Amino acid sequence: MNAPKPITSLTNDRVKAIRALEMRKMRKETGLFVAEGTSLLVTARDNGFVPETLVYQAGAAASGIARGLVTHALKSGAEVLEVSEAVLAKLASKDNPQTVLGVFKQRFIAPPRPNEVPANETWLALEEIRDPGNLGTIIRTADAVGCGGIILVGTTCDPYALEAIRATMGSIFAVPIAKMNHATFLQLARDWPGDVIGTHLTARDDFRGEDYRGPQLIVMGSEGPGLSSSAAAACSKLVKIPMAGKLDSLNLAIATALMLYQVRGPHLKL
Amino acid sequence: MNAPKPITSLTNDRVKAIRALEMRKMRKETGLFVAEGTSLLVTARDNGFVPETLVYQAGAAASGIARGLVTHALKSGAEVLEVSEAVLAKLASKDNPQTVLGVFKQRFIAPPRPNEVPANETWLALEEIRDPGNLGTIIRTADAVGCGGIILVGTTCDPYALEAIRATMGSIFAVPIAKMNHATFLQLARDWPGDVIGTHLTARDDFRGEDYRGPQLIVMGSEGPGLSSSAAAACSKLVKIPMAGKLDSLNLAIATALMLYQVRGPHLKL
Repeated sequence: MNAPKPITSLTNDRVKAIRALEMRKMRKETGLFVAEGTSLLVTARDNGFVPETLVYQAGAAASGIARGLVTHALKSGAEVLEVSEAVLAKLASKDNPQTVLGVFKQRFIAPPRPNEVPANETWLALEEIRDPGNLGTIIRTADAVGCGGIILVGTTCDPYALEAIRATMGSIFAVPIAKMNHATFLQLARDWPGDVIGTHLTARDDFRGEDYRGPQLIVMGSEGPGLSSSAAAACSKLVKIPMAGKLDSLNLAIATALMLYQVRGPHLKL
Repeated sequence: MNAPKPITSLTNDRVKAIRALEMRKMRKETGLFVAEGTSLLVTARDNGFVPETLVYQAGAAASGIARGLVTHALKSGAEVLEVSEAVLAKLASKDNPQTVLGVFKQRFIAPPRPNEVPANETWLALEEIRDPGNLGTIIRTADAVGCGGIILVGTTCDPYALEAIRATMGSIFAVPIAKMNHATFLQLARDWPGDVIGTHLTARDDFRGEDYRGPQLIVMGSEGPGLSSSAAAACSKLVKIPMAGKLDSLNLAIATALMLYQVRGPHLKL
């Protein structure tokens, strides 16, 4: 079994490399991302993820959950770094400091093949989503309804950004995520065997009054502009979420949650 | 009619005073808050709010919506400051710069009197909510379902924090907000004429299967701990939102939106 490697220097190359994962460019180049805190790391382990590197604050893993995470990482052949408080403070986010963090490989699945998607599954496509907090919250909600997976369409924010990861509360390790460009998505929507469902301001059907034929593909547009006209045209059903007063939009994560619970409702039981 | 007052000095006292409203302490002392951007300021005007101070970037209010906001502010007797780009950059938030902002008086309503709340209203109580982004998103959703108002219970984050204001997308000017301590809230819940509805992990009733007698009071606990035991005991109905897989919680703004749409559903039409 490996042994933890002690690091106290703020200019250590490993420390610098992990810190650089704050930048999307470096996450893209390395295919890695950082998850902070015992709760996320336990969820990662429970979902079969082994960190490339586990970092913990010296003294903070003497017992309990953190100890278990260190042992699991060492047994799995991961690099384990025992760092000083100063080093961890440099690595971890400022507003929510944790004593343990893991570096993981990003995982994007191959897109689902329309003719192989089971009729009882629901998938979610997000077009050009921009806010990582929204994306993380949506991943968490998709997990809560047992969504088959999420498809990121076009130019989107990074699901492996720290803000997104944190908002998932661990669901990043449970929900399959694929990505594709617009043209590929439009073809997927055309080939989809069940309903392709979009929300649209001009729709005349209440989202609560419809039957959605499985497998469902829910398509949500970006914050602000909403669904593109080509994506809207690819939908078999366009629906609208009713709103009181003068409002014409909801937060994207809220609208997505209402759609997910409506469509997945028949599958969810206490 | 007043005339705009030009400011180019970064150390001007008015500039410093407005900037200080970033701090909760200063918002509390002055009873003021800042809303940024034409969209929020138009919503404020449409809801009858007049800014104490309107600040715009020199050259940015020559025509259009910004011009209308400046004219409205001047006619209403508000202080109007025409500032340089450098001054505005100092006043406005970095991640989403705007060319106009307003300083407004905070508005907290007196708590609703249980015997005077109409039976077709729904109110929302938030216990110890901590995240201003969540709170802002909840205010926006409460507006979307025509909620009677929001009651902040105990020690909560500030609905007038910039992050909350921004997440409301203007609904801060439309949704009445009251605040009270726990003891006062428990008495309100006991006196409430309709159902007092809480979500709780131990509840055995699905939130979708219940009839909710109006006026409804929905009570949501804080991020993490959830509903306090005293608040749970004050509820006439405890319900649960079903979740797939291993999850035991949703983001608070998501759970609140699902409850609001479920309870307000009969009142919402396209």
